[in-house]
Parts: sequence; C-alpha cells; structure tokens
Amino acid sequence: MSDLLESALNPRTVAIIGASENIHKIGGRPIYYMQRAGFSGTIYPVNPTREEVQGLKSYPSLASLPEVPELVLIVVAGEKALEAVEECAATGVKSVVVIASGFGEVDDAGRAVQQRMTDAARATGMRIYGPNTHGLANFGTGVIAGFSTMFIECPPQDGPIAVLSQSGGMSAMVYGLLRQKGLGVRHVHATGNEADVTVSEMAWAVAHDPEIKLILLYLENIANPEMLARTAEYARSRDLPIVAVKAGRCASGQQAASTHTGSMANEDRVVDAFFKKHGIWRVRDPHAQALAAEAYLKGWRPAGNKLVVISNSGASCVMGADAAEDNGLEMAKLSASTQQAVAKSLPGFATTTNPIDITAALLSNSGLFSEVLPCVAQDPAADMFFINIPVAGAGYDVQAFARDTAQFEALTGKPVAVAAWQASVSEPFRQAGVATFENEGDAVGVLGQLAAHTAMLRETITHWPALPTVDIQPGTEQYCDEAQSLALLSRHGVPVVEHVLCHSAEQVRAAFVKLGNNVALKGCSAEVPHKTEHALVTLGINNIDDAVSVFESHMAKLTLLNVKRAAVIVAAMSRGKHELMVGTRFDPVFGPVVLVGAGGKYVEAMKDYAVLLPPFSAEQVERALRGLRLAPMLDGVRGDAPMDVDAFSSIAVAVGKIAMAAGPNIASLDLNPVMVGSIGEGAKVVDALLERQG
Amino acid sequence: MSDLLESALNPRTVAIIGASENIHKIGGRPIYYMQRAGFSGTIYPVNPTREEVQGLKSYPSLASLPEVPELVLIVVAGEKALEAVEECAATGVKSVVVIASGFGEVDDAGRAVQQRMTDAARATGMRIYGPNTHGLANFGTGVIAGFSTMFIECPPQDGPIAVLSQSGGMSAMVYGLLRQKGLGVRHVHATGNEADVTVSEMAWAVAHDPEIKLILLYLENIANPEMLARTAEYARSRDLPIVAVKAGRCASGQQAASTHTGSMANEDRVVDAFFKKHGIWRVRDPHAQALAAEAYLKGWRPAGNKLVVISNSGASCVMGADAAEDNGLEMAKLSASTQQAVAKSLPGFATTTNPIDITAALLSNSGLFSEVLPCVAQDPAADMFFINIPVAGAGYDVQAFARDTAQFEALTGKPVAVAAWQASVSEPFRQAGVATFENEGDAVGVLGQLAAHTAMLRETITHWPALPTVDIQPGTEQYCDEAQSLALLSRHGVPVVEHVLCHSAEQVRAAFVKLGNNVALKGCSAEVPHKTEHALVTLGINNIDDAVSVFESHMAKLTLLNVKRAAVIVAAMSRGKHELMVGTRFDPVFGPVVLVGAGGKYVEAMKDYAVLLPPFSAEQVERALRGLRLAPMLDGVRGDAPMDVDAFSSIAVAVGKIAMAAGPNIASLDLNPVMVGSIGEGAKVVDALLERQG
Repeated sequence: MSDLLESALNPRTVAIIGASENIHKIGGRPIYYMQRAGFSGTIYPVNPTREEVQGLKSYPSLASLPEVPELVLIVVAGEKALEAVEECAATGVKSVVVIASGFGEVDDAGRAVQQRMTDAARATGMRIYGPNTHGLANFGTGVIAGFSTMFIECPPQDGPIAVLSQSGGMSAMVYGLLRQKGLGVRHVHATGNEADVTVSEMAWAVAHDPEIKLILLYLENIANPEMLARTAEYARSRDLPIVAVKAGRCASGQQAASTHTGSMANEDRVVDAFFKKHGIWRVRDPHAQALAAEAYLKGWRPAGNKLVVISNSGASCVMGADAAEDNGLEMAKLSASTQQAVAKSLPGFATTTNPIDITAALLSNSGLFSEVLPCVAQDPAADMFFINIPVAGAGYDVQAFARDTAQFEALTGKPVAVAAWQASVSEPFRQAGVATFENEGDAVGVLGQLAAHTAMLRETITHWPALPTVDIQPGTEQYCDEAQSLALLSRHGVPVVEHVLCHSAEQVRAAFVKLGNNVALKGCSAEVPHKTEHALVTLGINNIDDAVSVFESHMAKLTLLNVKRAAVIVAAMSRGKHELMVGTRFDPVFGPVVLVGAGGKYVEAMKDYAVLLPPFSAEQVERALRGLRLAPMLDGVRGDAPMDVDAFSSIAVAVGKIAMAAGPNIASLDLNPVMVGSIGEGAKVVDALLERQG
Repeated sequence: MSDLLESALNPRTVAIIGASENIHKIGGRPIYYMQRAGFSGTIYPVNPTREEVQGLKSYPSLASLPEVPELVLIVVAGEKALEAVEECAATGVKSVVVIASGFGEVDDAGRAVQQRMTDAARATGMRIYGPNTHGLANFGTGVIAGFSTMFIECPPQDGPIAVLSQSGGMSAMVYGLLRQKGLGVRHVHATGNEADVTVSEMAWAVAHDPEIKLILLYLENIANPEMLARTAEYARSRDLPIVAVKAGRCASGQQAASTHTGSMANEDRVVDAFFKKHGIWRVRDPHAQALAAEAYLKGWRPAGNKLVVISNSGASCVMGADAAEDNGLEMAKLSASTQQAVAKSLPGFATTTNPIDITAALLSNSGLFSEVLPCVAQDPAADMFFINIPVAGAGYDVQAFARDTAQFEALTGKPVAVAAWQASVSEPFRQAGVATFENEGDAVGVLGQLAAHTAMLRETITHWPALPTVDIQPGTEQYCDEAQSLALLSRHGVPVVEHVLCHSAEQVRAAFVKLGNNVALKGCSAEVPHKTEHALVTLGINNIDDAVSVFESHMAKLTLLNVKRAAVIVAAMSRGKHELMVGTRFDPVFGPVVLVGAGGKYVEAMKDYAVLLPPFSAEQVERALRGLRLAPMLDGVRGDAPMDVDAFSSIAVAVGKIAMAAGPNIASLDLNPVMVGSIGEGAKVVDALLERQG
C-alpha cells in the first residue's frame, strides 16, 4: 500500500466524535462495523453524555483521549463539524472523515464553511475526507469509518476490488451489486464534496494495494486529472484495470451534479478523451461496472476482437451475430478443419460456420455440447467465445453443459461468456465458475469491452521529450490577426497557404501576379476575428482589376468597422480537395485539448471532430479521424484518390506541441480549413486564428 | 377473433401424426399440454404401433380417423412429413403444423420439398404452419400444437399478450420471460420457415382477439409487408401496441438468419422506416420486449416527453437526468408552487428542482416519500415520473415507500416507474403493483419508449387519394438521360434548374446568353449516367467562348465513349445555398422507398439521409430531416438564413407520388443535388437520373 492516505486506510487508532450506542445511527454504525470486521487497533468513542458506547469506554471530548488518534470520524453536523475539524487539526490528528451534509453542495455560505475546514487541515497537514460523505471502509484492515446500511444488507467479504466514489450512495450500490454477484470487495470509499482528498488520490493509494485487481470509480467531476492520469499509468504498469462511471454526461445531468456534490462541469467529450488516453474504460452506470467485474477478475485480456457464437437456437445465433457487430466485434472465420470437425457432430441441417447452430437437436442429444466445443477450442481465428442458451431446462442435461463449458474454458484459455436467463440454466453455469449473463447484449457487451479495453491498454504511450518555444505576437487584443496566426504556425513548421499581407493596391497587384493569377482576398485585422460574418472573404479572383476592387471594398468595410490596423491578405487559391480542421482549446481542468475533424463553416453545427489530449502520435490522429463520419473520405470515395492523412496528422501533432508548450498563453487556436490534398500532395493551412490567454 | 386461421387457433378436432406416449417427446408433449390446458375439442393421436396414447384411443392412419380433423400436427420428419402434408391436403384438413427441420433453411433440395408442401396445400386451400417450427399454442382455447419445453418450465396462465415468432426458440424465450415477470400470455405461435402462413398473417388473426392488449413479434425477415401494415393499422385503431424484434440487423446477422429460417435479407434502414411508418416499435431483443410489457399493459400513453426524477441519492438524480437525455426525454420544469411545496418537506440541503433529491434524510424520516410525492403529482409540466432508489433496505420503511408510490400512481394517473436493484426493495414495490426495474437505464428507457411509441401512434396517417400518371420516356437503355429525367420531374411540377439541351456551338451561345452569362455544361447521354466520373461536368462558366470550348470538349469525350446520342446540357448556375438530395428506389419487398438528406458527391459515403415510405406528408419529410446530422443547417447556423424546407419537402412529396404511381417501372430516381435556398427562395433540382425497371 502507498503511504499516502495510510492514516485513513490503515490507522492504529480511530475516534468517533458523536459516537452512539444505537447501531442504526450514523454515530453507532461505524463502531459496530469495525468490531464486526475485526479491526485490530483501538476505537475511541467520543460522547460527553455516556460512560460507555457499545461496550467501549466513552470519552467526553477529543482532548480527554489517552492519545491523539490517527483517524477521527466526525458525525456531528453544521458549525459543530467545523469546530471538530479545527480541533482535530490543532491536536495533530492525521485524517478526519466528515459525514455531515450542508456545505459546498448547497450555497456560498456552505462553501465558505467548507473552505475553513480545508484551510484548517492544510495548515497542519491533516487530510479531510468529505464533508457530505458516507465515509470510508477498508475490509482488508477492518477500518470502517462510514455508516452505509449496505454493509448490513450485503455482508462484507474481503476481495480484490476497490470502489472509489464521490457519491456515498453509489459506493454502497456498487459494493452491493458486487457482493450480490458473490465477488469480494476490499475498499469502499466515498469522498463526497472533496474538500481535500479526491477520488483520484484515493485511487492512487489503493492501486498500490497488491491484492487489488480491479478499480471501480464513480465520478461527478474530475478535479485533478494529473493525479488520476498518474494512477492510471501506474495501474497499467501492473495490469490493474480501471473502470469508471462519470455521471453528469449531459447538460441536465451536469446541473444535477452541481447540486449533489458541488461538482464543476467537465466537457463530456474531453472527459471521454481523457479516459481513452489513460486507458480508463468508461461505462454508463454502476450496473455496467458490476456486470463486467468477474470477467476482469478472470484476467482475460483478449488478443483481438474475433468472436465465435454458439447456440442451440438459430435465432440466438442471429442475435449473437447482431450483438457482436453492435459491440465492435467481428465474427471469427473458422478454419475448414474446424468446420469439418463441427459438422461431424451436428445434424445435417445445423450450421457449422460461425455462428454455430447446435439446433434443438441438443434436446435429444446432450452430448452435442461436449462434442462441438473441443472442435473450436484451438481454432486460431477465435479470440473469444459466446455461448447463447435461450431455451433449456427440463429435458436438457444442463449440469453436463455447464461442466463441459468450464472444461472448454480451461482448454481454450480464452474468454468464454454464456447467456442464459432461466435460473435453472444459469445457476449450474455460475456454480461451475463460468461467466454467465442474463442476455446476449450483456454477455457480448462485456466481451467487447474487454477486447477494446485491452487494446486501449496496449496502445503505446506517446511522449514528447522536447517542446518548442512558442512566441506569441504581443498585443492587447483578444486575438492575433490571421497573418500573425499563420506566421506563428509557419515558424513551427506547419505548412500554410502562400500569402501576402497587403496595405495598398500596388501590393495587391504584385501579390496577384506572384501568387499565380488566382487568389483569395481576406480582410485582416485582430479586431475582426470572424471575417466571414462581415463578408470579408472573397475567393477565386482570377482578374487583377477585380483583385484591386475587392481589396478596396474590404478596406472600406474595415474602416466602417472602426478597425485601427486594417490590411488585406492576398492568398493563393489552394488546390487541396478536402477541408479538414485542427483546433486547440485550453481547458481549465485538462489543459490543452486538440480537436481534429471536418473543416469549413459548420464545424460546431456538424460536430464531426475528435478530441485528443497531447501528447499524441500521428497514428493516433489518424485513428481518431477513422472514428469520424468523414472516415470514408480518407481512403477516397467515388473515384477520389486517398487523402494525404500523414500530412494532416503531422499538422495536428505540431499544433499539439504548440498548445502544450504555450499552455494557458493560448486560449484557442483554430486552423480551419486545412486543405488536404491527395496522397503525396500534402496539406496546407488556409486560415488560422489564435486567441490569447483569456 | 378473425376467421382467418380459426382452424389452427380454435379447431374442434386436432390430430397428431406421430403421437407418442412419452410426454418428453415431440409427439407426446402436445397431447399432454392440450389435456392440461383444458382443450375442449377432440384429440386424435395417430400412431400405427399403439392402441392408446396418453389415455386416448390411437389410430393407425389419418384415413382411419372417424372424421377429418380441422388441425393436424405433423411430427414425422423428412419425406414422411411431405407425404403427410399431401395426404392432409387431399383429405380436406384445414390446417397443418409441420414441426420437422431440414427443408427451406438448408439447401435447394430442401427448398424444393418445402415448395411441394406449399403447392399441395395451395391446391386445396389448406394452410401450413412451418416447417422447422416449435408450433402453435393458444392458452385461450387450450389448443397447443407445439412441443416447447418452456410450457413445463414456466406454467402457462392465460393473459392479454400474444407472441408471434418465426423462431420457435424465441417464442419460447419471450413467453418464459413474460411468465417469469408474472404476466399472462395467451398466444405463443412460431411460424418457422413460413412455407405458407407468416407471422404477419398470424398477427392479423390475433389482433382480432379482443382480449389481446399487446402483440410481440420476432421476425428474421418481412415477407409480406402489406399484411403486417394492415395489421398495424387495425391494431392502432383499437389501441393495441405492437413491439417487434427484427433480427439480422447487420450483415453477419443477416447471413446467420438465412441459414436459420431461410430468410431473405431486408435492408435494415428500410425495415426501420417501415416499422416507424406503421407505428410498430422496434426493440433489440426479447428481453427488451418483456421489459416494457407491464408498462404497455398498464395502458400508459404519455401525453409528452417531460420526466420528473425523484431519488434518495444525489448521484441517482444525476444519472436519472443523464438517462432521460439518453432516452429522448426532457426534464420537466416544475412550477414555483410545486417547488415550494417540495421544499417545505425536505431538509435545507435537498434539491427541490427536478431532479428532486430527497437525500439520505429518508433514512431518518420515512415520511418524506409520502410528503414529497403528492406535491408533484398534479404539476402540469410532468408527463411521467421516475423514482430511483439505489440504496434502501434495513432501517428504511420500504413497505411504506411502496404503498406511497402505488397511491401516488393512482393519484397522478401518469406513468410512474421505479428502479431498485435490491430484492428487499423491489419486491414490496412489485407487490404493490408498481412497475419496478433493475436500474435507471431500463426504467427510463421504457418510459422513453412509451412516450415515443405513443407519439408515433398518434401521428396522422397520410393518404394520397390521387396519384399522377407517370410517363417514362421509352428506351432500351437502363437509364434516361439527364434532360429526360429533368423533363419528367418538370412535368410533375418539380422545379428544375433552367437549362437547354444543346447539340451545336450555336445553340450553346444562345443558351449562354439566355441563361444569364453564368452556366454549367454537362455532357448528356443515357449511356453515360455517371457524368462526374468522366469529367463531363463543368461549373461556373462566365465567358461565352469558354462555354463553346467546353461544349466541344464534352462532345469529344462522349464520342470517345462511343455514345450513340450525344448532347450537352447548358444550365443556369443555381443560387441555392445548400445541397440536399431526394432519391427513390424500388425495393423488391417494400416497394417504393424515398431517401431524403444531404446531397452532393458523397451521399453514400456520408449516409446522412433518412428513409421514408410513401405516402408521407411534407411535415414528415421535415421531421425526417430534423433527425439528420444536417438538422442544424435547416434553421441557419453561423449567420445563414433558415433554409426553405417547405420547398424541399414539396419536392420530396412529389417524388414519393411519382415513385408510388410508377411502381417497379422506376428502379431508381435520384435528384442530386437539390439546391435549397433561404426561406422563400425555393428549391430547385440541378441534376437528376432516372433508372428504368431493372
């Protein structure tokens, strides 16, 4: 275990301020739980009205304890809670858990009180868990500084799973769902308002517990992504998967989150990009976390995404194949010898390609299962197996099917999931240790998750050892003008359109000729960042006199807009075939964020872009593009040549480096459009806009 | 009940060819089931080797029966099955159920035998169910002409649900899932290979059973959409919802379906459009059918899509709000008076806006539930309620919560769904008659389904009383040329771009001037339907000599392509701002199908289009467009004026009428692009291509 948080997860002494004799009260339950869970340290109930609490000597105050406790659980509420925190900090307590609600999640006054708690703790190095929390529970050490009723509903059993949650309710729910499935859980910690300690920090601590094989997180916001990123990196190094729920996915959910744990909204696409980058698998809800837990604990790490579907129902074969496609899996192409072997076992009307339809003949011959499974076990095309049993029970030898399946799983060494909704069918499979689900959607969904999560965790981590020095043209305006923005990109090796900044008709004439008699003219001023909306962009001018008259018209418009420094960019018309874009934003939580996708006027409306967090590789840019709706364009459709994706990806990487080097000095930088030519023709930034620090 | 299929669903006499004493054999089970289900007619076992079967006199042959049975269940296989079918037809039997597999789903030989069965039946008007089926079961009449083991696993109870399925396994599974939930089921019929009677026809029959309140279908293909459409129309007229699974959604699933029941593939987007048009709700699998059944049977038909979320966990409020957005629901905006009333009941730190967070204070005050619920019951903003209880059990008065919720449901008269995963919580709610789900995804998903399905069923059905007469230019080529295609559209009132078909330079010069000195030139020949791929489209020509030289170049290219009749279209350059498209295809199963969506070169690659089945209204076209990715464009983004959607929709309706009138005479007709201007500016077809009957 990491030393961090040791005083909360493995203290020798625990005091409860507000201790109760009643084990159904918040101040009574932790004492009951700790005694039941075999906590080997000392429990100090603090309650001035009693001599004894639950058979333990009770003390009137913190000051009256025989020693300074390492961990103090504060059950009192409101102003008293603040006083207790301050007293604990002053006394040298190492950690406090504050249960009471009514602080940062309510209003400014509450936030102020909560801040005073944080300040008091910070002054002495004490750590705070909460307020507004169900508390902590470590079934490895028996330290239960929490009151969840769920530990009565579902009796604890130590095991390889850690549950870390901002919400107490969700920590209890995930714990309960896991216990219901018979899985052991060691850590169940809720951080509530996170006045100090966050879920990320707790994840770091429990990731260092060598017994932990799976970490489940419930988050409503990500306050310190660096810590979570560091945890994820460490977890990956020891093959410890992390599966997270990040609630508040949509606008109304985010609003609800802000009144629940006082969470700030994170932009959801950025959250997705963050999880993806760090190999954290995101699921929708605690049910999905519990659903996949057994499969993770089996240590399954599929080598690929090829699935074999086997069923005794043709319809379930069809739906299994549909479910595979829904979940990003492909149907494995079985070898001819496998198919021959399968065909020998099955009746003539059965299907021996994948999916394999054992047919209802299983009813009259229970041996079909044991005959067919070994035929496919060693087929190299198969990465995973799904056995769908929608109908069985009376008349079927289900015990034999379950035994055969368990043997098959041992034989193949690859993931094997079963779907069966009848208890009479699923129970024998579960007892045989086979991962068994209610329906094909759940079963194939978990297999798909394992395949994709494994692939994600095996991705090479990109490092950028050296970052450029980024000099942003100084200025008081919010934006750099287009010429300045293009110049900055050009200095960093990004190919930009050939252009000349013109202040006079004479310069325009010279530029027109120099740029090949086919140009675009664009009004250029830091004060008018959105040129199009002022009709300051004119394309495809191929007559020199037209160029001059457009120049004059643009200059006149800029004058009308009261612009101080007006000029016009004359740019060569670009030959690129496709308009893409690269953008970067500085996110207050996640730092620089890069967008790549379809360019043009309608980027925001069409939303065909992907979010990348630097550092990232050119390959990752390409993979991101291949996940977009524009993906078919990359390879060329309707007679187009394939696009020069490499050239575009290099630009995106360069922008990522600029963004990371500049940090908050660049609020945003948009390259739109980036004209991308056919393969070998390169890519070129045609327009750019840099926004200075906000 | 409709008279159709009466001889199979309600016969007075049933014979079983291949009857067995053993109730675990396929020939024994139906007799056992019918006797147990109280069938009041006569059962005739046919088995030459026995005197008696299951206490009934057995007959050596069909010919030896004292009367011609109405329904015959044929349990024998292979060639014997064919002989039995032929004998039944010859004898005057009205319906036969053929259980055996190994016919149309296997190979050409099997298909031939199956066809002989069909021919024999058609010759005398006998109906066939199957082959390759689990058979029929009507628990209303006790006629169980099937062998599913599921009727042993889950004892039958007559009720308001009908299950109709191509797959026997799926009919059994849906039946079992419904019975597991305590719901009664009357009809469970499987049609297998559908040599004659289809699921659609059975649906028509059971829709006329007045006791039936919900029809569930499992389909692998839709063979006779007219019958299903007619059934859906009738069902809608008596407020009888239909929920369907159509498996084989993706390529590998469709392939699997063809080997299961010998199904032909339907294009999945067309299937979706068909269901949508006819008010049939499509779900993924039988679990989803069973999940929503109770809610349908409650008769809930939500007036709108506004949801109120109530929970004792803040996190569950957040996830409830997320789930609402996932499922197309909006959070209802509660009135000020509702919020005040809620606030009076709850602690200060609770949230009284929607979602309503009762908070963990529920643990200490079980009355909060009964205090809060009535406050929101009458809020007019609410269409539906969702109560999420992720944590309760020991210490909570769950019985009271359940009672309060049932009273609340009666009081509000609107849908109320509960999510609770702990059996100790969900059971009391279920016993109180409250629709209770495992998790918020399921609960809110079902509410969203009800809201959307109700809205679908309330849509006005479009009728086109008069269709135009469509005269397609006669010709031997597969395609009409562009000029002919545009002319056809123009004759039907569709606005097309101003253009002149030119055969000489002189004509081009005249056209250039006539069309305003800014034109496009396009090679025009029925033999070169895809002009762009031959560089036969030149846009934006604003010089008369350029026009002539482009004309000559296009004519030369056409000559090189060995075109018999070459010409060039000179067309005015269109001013429309957005490129949309309308297309129609003649689908061999569904007839004319209309596509509307984003136009341009990349229609197939970008797939931003919707499928409509005629007849449809202009409003339906607009609604379809609003479901596309291009939707934001319709209202204007980045300073654009809104598009003239009405003008576009009128074109789509006109094309729908042309397609419906022409039927298979038009294989396809593509209007791409249709240039759509700002509101009031209209829309114009710029290019069109008509494909004659294939």
